[in-house]
Amino acid sequence: MEKYVYGFGSGKSDGRADMKNLLGGKGANLAEMSNLGIPVPAGFTITTDVCTYYYQNDNTYPDELKDQVLAALKTTEEAMGAKFGDVENPLLISVRSGARQSMPGMMETVLNVGLNSKTIEALIKKTDNARFVYDAYRRLITMYADVVMEKAAGVDPEEGKGIRFQLEEIMEEMKTEKGYTNDSDLEVDDLKKLVQLFKSKIEETLGKKFPDDPYDQLWGGISAVFSSWNGKRAIAYRRIEGIPDEWGTAVNVQSMVYGNMGDSSATGVAFTRNPATGENLFYGEWLINAQGEDVVAGIRTPNPLNIKNKTEETKDSVSLEEAIPDAYTQLFEIRNKLESHYKDMQDVEFTIQEGRLWMLQTRTGKRNGPAAVKMAVDMADEGLIHIKTALSRVKPSQLDELLHDMLDPNEEKKSKELAKGLPAGPGGASGQIVLTADDAEAWKKDGKKVVLVRNETSPEDVHGMHAAEAILTATGGMTSHAALVARGWGKCCIVGCGALNIDLKKKEISIGDLTVKEGDWISLNGSSGRVYLGDVKTIKPNMKKNKEYSQLMEWADTYRRLGVRTNADSPADAQQAIEFGAEGIGLTRTEHMFFGDDRIVAMRKMILADNLEDREKALGELLPYQREDFYGILKAMKDKPVTIRTLDPPLHEFLPHEEDAQKIVAEQMGVSVDEIRQKVENLHEFNPMLGHRGCRLGVTYPEITRMQAQAIIEAACQLTKEGYKVYPEIMIPLIGTRAELAHQRKVVVEIAEKVIKDMGQKVNYLVGTMIEIPRAAITADQVAEEADFFSFGTNDLTQMAFGYSRDDAAKFLPEFYDKKILPEDPFQSIDREGVGQLVKMGVEKGRATKPDLKIGICGEHGGDPSSVEFCHQIGLDYVSCSPYRVPIARLAAAQAVLSEK
Amino acid sequence: MEKYVYGFGSGKSDGRADMKNLLGGKGANLAEMSNLGIPVPAGFTITTDVCTYYYQNDNTYPDELKDQVLAALKTTEEAMGAKFGDVENPLLISVRSGARQSMPGMMETVLNVGLNSKTIEALIKKTDNARFVYDAYRRLITMYADVVMEKAAGVDPEEGKGIRFQLEEIMEEMKTEKGYTNDSDLEVDDLKKLVQLFKSKIEETLGKKFPDDPYDQLWGGISAVFSSWNGKRAIAYRRIEGIPDEWGTAVNVQSMVYGNMGDSSATGVAFTRNPATGENLFYGEWLINAQGEDVVAGIRTPNPLNIKNKTEETKDSVSLEEAIPDAYTQLFEIRNKLESHYKDMQDVEFTIQEGRLWMLQTRTGKRNGPAAVKMAVDMADEGLIHIKTALSRVKPSQLDELLHDMLDPNEEKKSKELAKGLPAGPGGASGQIVLTADDAEAWKKDGKKVVLVRNETSPEDVHGMHAAEAILTATGGMTSHAALVARGWGKCCIVGCGALNIDLKKKEISIGDLTVKEGDWISLNGSSGRVYLGDVKTIKPNMKKNKEYSQLMEWADTYRRLGVRTNADSPADAQQAIEFGAEGIGLTRTEHMFFGDDRIVAMRKMILADNLEDREKALGELLPYQREDFYGILKAMKDKPVTIRTLDPPLHEFLPHEEDAQKIVAEQMGVSVDEIRQKVENLHEFNPMLGHRGCRLGVTYPEITRMQAQAIIEAACQLTKEGYKVYPEIMIPLIGTRAELAHQRKVVVEIAEKVIKDMGQKVNYLVGTMIEIPRAAITADQVAEEADFFSFGTNDLTQMAFGYSRDDAAKFLPEFYDKKILPEDPFQSIDREGVGQLVKMGVEKGRATKPDLKIGICGEHGGDPSSVEFCHQIGLDYVSCSPYRVPIARLAAAQAVLSEK
Repeated sequence: MEKYVYGFGSGKSDGRADMKNLLGGKGANLAEMSNLGIPVPAGFTITTDVCTYYYQNDNTYPDELKDQVLAALKTTEEAMGAKFGDVENPLLISVRSGARQSMPGMMETVLNVGLNSKTIEALIKKTDNARFVYDAYRRLITMYADVVMEKAAGVDPEEGKGIRFQLEEIMEEMKTEKGYTNDSDLEVDDLKKLVQLFKSKIEETLGKKFPDDPYDQLWGGISAVFSSWNGKRAIAYRRIEGIPDEWGTAVNVQSMVYGNMGDSSATGVAFTRNPATGENLFYGEWLINAQGEDVVAGIRTPNPLNIKNKTEETKDSVSLEEAIPDAYTQLFEIRNKLESHYKDMQDVEFTIQEGRLWMLQTRTGKRNGPAAVKMAVDMADEGLIHIKTALSRVKPSQLDELLHDMLDPNEEKKSKELAKGLPAGPGGASGQIVLTADDAEAWKKDGKKVVLVRNETSPEDVHGMHAAEAILTATGGMTSHAALVARGWGKCCIVGCGALNIDLKKKEISIGDLTVKEGDWISLNGSSGRVYLGDVKTIKPNMKKNKEYSQLMEWADTYRRLGVRTNADSPADAQQAIEFGAEGIGLTRTEHMFFGDDRIVAMRKMILADNLEDREKALGELLPYQREDFYGILKAMKDKPVTIRTLDPPLHEFLPHEEDAQKIVAEQMGVSVDEIRQKVENLHEFNPMLGHRGCRLGVTYPEITRMQAQAIIEAACQLTKEGYKVYPEIMIPLIGTRAELAHQRKVVVEIAEKVIKDMGQKVNYLVGTMIEIPRAAITADQVAEEADFFSFGTNDLTQMAFGYSRDDAAKFLPEFYDKKILPEDPFQSIDREGVGQLVKMGVEKGRATKPDLKIGICGEHGGDPSSVEFCHQIGLDYVSCSPYRVPIARLAAAQAVLSEK
Repeated sequence: MEKYVYGFGSGKSDGRADMKNLLGGKGANLAEMSNLGIPVPAGFTITTDVCTYYYQNDNTYPDELKDQVLAALKTTEEAMGAKFGDVENPLLISVRSGARQSMPGMMETVLNVGLNSKTIEALIKKTDNARFVYDAYRRLITMYADVVMEKAAGVDPEEGKGIRFQLEEIMEEMKTEKGYTNDSDLEVDDLKKLVQLFKSKIEETLGKKFPDDPYDQLWGGISAVFSSWNGKRAIAYRRIEGIPDEWGTAVNVQSMVYGNMGDSSATGVAFTRNPATGENLFYGEWLINAQGEDVVAGIRTPNPLNIKNKTEETKDSVSLEEAIPDAYTQLFEIRNKLESHYKDMQDVEFTIQEGRLWMLQTRTGKRNGPAAVKMAVDMADEGLIHIKTALSRVKPSQLDELLHDMLDPNEEKKSKELAKGLPAGPGGASGQIVLTADDAEAWKKDGKKVVLVRNETSPEDVHGMHAAEAILTATGGMTSHAALVARGWGKCCIVGCGALNIDLKKKEISIGDLTVKEGDWISLNGSSGRVYLGDVKTIKPNMKKNKEYSQLMEWADTYRRLGVRTNADSPADAQQAIEFGAEGIGLTRTEHMFFGDDRIVAMRKMILADNLEDREKALGELLPYQREDFYGILKAMKDKPVTIRTLDPPLHEFLPHEEDAQKIVAEQMGVSVDEIRQKVENLHEFNPMLGHRGCRLGVTYPEITRMQAQAIIEAACQLTKEGYKVYPEIMIPLIGTRAELAHQRKVVVEIAEKVIKDMGQKVNYLVGTMIEIPRAAITADQVAEEADFFSFGTNDLTQMAFGYSRDDAAKFLPEFYDKKILPEDPFQSIDREGVGQLVKMGVEKGRATKPDLKIGICGEHGGDPSSVEFCHQIGLDYVSCSPYRVPIARLAAAQAVLSEK
């Protein structure tokens, strides 16, 4: 006979903590605590298998269930010394859901089951507290009518018009009539009358009587819980959290205990360590003479659990330690037992009924980033857990909280949310709205904090983006220009915030009916994508002084196999990245260097040149700038490898597209506006992403590649002369065929050898390629013949493998997630089945030609934990990501090793 | 000892026709003819190995060469009964190049080698024709100075300033002085004097004497030929024709024979069958008392070879058959011998020296398309060749000449070429220039023939494209909108003609310095991409009456395994394609159907709708139109399968982008211009090719897919009711993930089953997908689970695998071909190594899931012979192409079978 019911709380339990799939998290842990000898109100769990059966069999139960429930109830009665439905010493029970993964508030609960016209008298006699009992009865009736009877009647009233609302209305009427303010003003007689009124109303509205038989109440409650697994809220929640529908919920039936039976009764929640700081201190809150929901609901302000918990604000409150010292001592012992048993911080609920402590729940406690780091390292230091366990305890993304300013969560909670976009640059920031890059720069000079709000950004906006505290765009995805640039700087950024309507003329933004103006304050949570009105306070972390963080990173480095490099375009970025632990540069984008004041003029001359001679002259002007850039970066990275990508973006990006700007440029350069306009038109492309860029420019204008290679090798020779060891790696972008790479390699090697000979230095340089065009991955065996290294550019590879423009797809992709057509943003986390297979193919084919081929990744995926794991699995040598993601990648790389079988 | 020299013409030759790689085409065939007992002036061939040696060894020869040449020369002397350099009976020889593949005019030739101050007298005595001999001497000196001496001196004069020019100037001066008009007016004494003047000039200019030693002349000639293999012209030619540099040339040294030794001498060229019509008639031209070059150069008008060759214009000319009947009879016998030996039409050169016939060359003759078809079928019917050989004799592309109007080649030769673009739609056409689609339609209504010239075309231009005789665009590649539409209609079209500068305001086009205006006539050769000024006459083929064509196609069908379907968007296209032999429709693009007058209004209503209800209402208006379309196409195709693709292009394509047009639409629809403008802006994408289109629209707006599926199945049910058998195949475009296809499949199947039930008919329909996104190919095993069939959309697959926008890449791809980075346009012929591997992967993975999965291709590659071969090799079930390419695909599919080992 299959076992559907697992008892707990009466000696040895049937279940264990590792039976979460069958018993749900709550049930499994109740069984486990009970096995540890921790006092748990007796009860039993009906398994998730019953839930599955229930839905597969037209809302019926297995035949064996009834007998098993009755048997378990009998054991419970024995353990608690009371009897369900007994008119002398009645047992009251609760019926709750308990899924494998917590779904707080999404399913139904019925409390005080077992109270009826007969047992109520016995209970009054027993407790000598008629008001308490009638209040419990009133609650049972309300709850039961709502979650069991109304649903069973198939009634689906409008929001706020259901039976619960009607019953509460009756109670409010009575309170008004009597001149009461609070529910607690209701007296026994009032409650007695209410119970009658409630019962009549229920019969009138739902056509059925409130059941007086405790067993009817029990089965009704069980059905209600199972039914609620497929309630609208629960389904929606599962969609968001990715919980499979077929898991089902368990039902926990448990004896009621009461924390509101006088001043020797209490209730509270506690964490075995401080979940906000990670400190190894028992931390919690409690209320005397109260029920659990009072703590959670925030109706009364709870007191600190113990003396050490007291703060300046709560120093005069009475702690549980002081008020009920015996119970506290017992609780503290349980806390120690739970931690040493579960080897992790626990989040517990307890109730003290007339001096007797009952544990109602234990589960692994949620914690913020800094706390996660501290606890993991502390516990490892304490010998509680292994270093490997410590490493896997911290979600890599939690490190963001140690690296960036964050919005103060308390302030954030109270702020008005304006809109939601994609969380492109983590952290929090506030500032006054500006709508152009020039304004951002100007306002910043005037000492103001600004948030730059644009439809989208382009390289022309970079100075304003730099000046801004944060960047907010209406369009674009996780790898749009704004996202890439912001993430590179560790700057808070939200993109693809479709609700924004920016009116540049009126200098205002409308969001639905709301309008905010230039100069108004907004705040951004770049980790969640939420935009708030007003100036929300931020919290500053101090990563450098955090010794647990340093320790964790050190441990990560000893375990990981993958190298971690950074994407950096300036010596400052490079320096920042080294502090974060970068072992080299995986991507330097040279094009960002062309936007300086003098440089852009030379760049534009180069673009406007219509013959080789003029073009080479203009390139000659750019050469010293580029050499200086590369000198700085190579020097900053000292003896670490530096991968420098030759010019990548289409040339039109370097010319202004608006007439006014074109006029200014024309004057600067001494040409006609028509000439500029004509050039911009000539360079126009329908699909620039698939256009004349990357190595295609280098093939058409080899002189550009040659100038860049010359600048790199000249800088390298100069540094070598100065005694530095430098390892430049020249990377050709957008290669699709072996012949392209052969062409560009020849250009690079020719000039490099010439410079090396002329300068009389020995420099080891490599020439390799981005693999970002699907065809390059497919023909990687051929491409490898010309390459010293590969670096996967998974941004473009994702674009082309899916056929999604990263600048446009944000318009429809969210709907794809909603409809479960895509599990997540493939620009954020690598699509292992598709894009990942191309990468894998590229690795295998590349190494088939050159077994030692050095292979990395420099797309945004290099900083995404799941993608880092994938890169580890397929044998990459390193990942490269923006400086602020380097610690995340280091931890993720270590976890990738640990998650191997 | 290695053999470097192969003799011919004196008994059994050393070489054979199949030794072309070693002896070059000319030398191998001279040897072969000689072996057949055909009279060939004796001589020998120096092998291509010597050329290779020459370039690998610093322009020197193998040691053995000299002796072998002298030995061969001796044999030649014996055969011809004359002696090289002999003062009594001197032998004169020619030194010519002869590569594996003909490179006409690209390398050097020296004739009359062996004439010097001593042999000249003997020859005069022997021929009794001093003028003839001095003229030969004058020619030798000029030629030798030019091709041997000037090159050897390292002089590189400006074009038209070299030694040849200087010598010709001397001759012109003399002619002026003497009052002569023609070279032939020069008398013996004049020529004697000229020879002296030439020799002096040569010594003065080049610092060396003209060699008097015949052996110096011989070796100088041999060196000149080998050197010319790496001349600029030859290298450029090889680049264009794809001839490898390492092949090298052979050198043919051959006894001179002269057709200009009086009225019993003659020279001519002939084809064993008529190369213009394919008729089995000996065809050729000859000149009495002339040298070969006179026929080729067109200085004198040659006569018809025989009586049957005579035309109205040449009826009074004397044929060789009449003039020298013995020689003609011998020639005719040789013609028969050559055809029965080579089993193909031969192109021969002959000379008759004083009544004696000598064959100078035979090679497989070039022929046009109709002739190729006729010859192949005739020869098979005659039993000369096997049907398989007949099938491989016709290049599939030659069929174009039977299917389209072509420019008259004679007229074309004389016309002024304006510019060159990509040959997007084959055939020829002329018309008056119009610059807008509306004008094209209006002018056509006025009875004019027009050519529509645009920067690029869009669906809004389709009515004008239809009205035009031909289409010419400045931008775009082989799969641009203009190219696709034109090819679908079999219309002449040239795209990507970058030299055009269209000025819409002035209504004119400038091409370099030249300006042509609206209304001017131009002519297009859509097979070569050439644009001519003026009204060039066209030739109309009549494919239907061509019984050899029908026979060839019938044979092709018996051999091919691949099915051939067509891409057709209307019943008329479908009907046309059936006539061409299409076995079904592989692609119906439904979007073209939305541009009708009433339809576009409904379509725009649908796009402007901001809620489901309005959208469904607008779709309801489109439904009857769509049903009617599908009814027509399904009926036209009768019992053949019809693949219908659901909506593919981005919605913005259905809205006007120019303000004036927006105003009109706004009025039509009763909305504000702002609303239209706003919608167009909202729909704007940076890279529309990677944007919100294909199944992404169907996922966002399932109601569109539903309407289309409903229309298809309703039409199918109606036809079934009427007694037709129909096989609709509903194809979902742009699938990247299995989930997308599952989503769309569900939408289709739900409505289809409903319609089938409601209409009470049984209809077999399939639901499949385009594989055009790289990810779909990579995950084809998953996608196949939801697909009844695959159809590779290799246009988009090529775009995304290479990362080339087909609308933009034409700007830089030509340079890629020049630089040998790409062998050819991957949009025209499938890139087997890259894109082809994706297709192969898709086939293998798809069939791994469903072994019987029906797989086709519906990109433009479906009509490209090389791509058809590839499709055959990887096991596709069918190819689908535009109607006019169906015969090409049928033949290519048969050839693919025949080229298998």
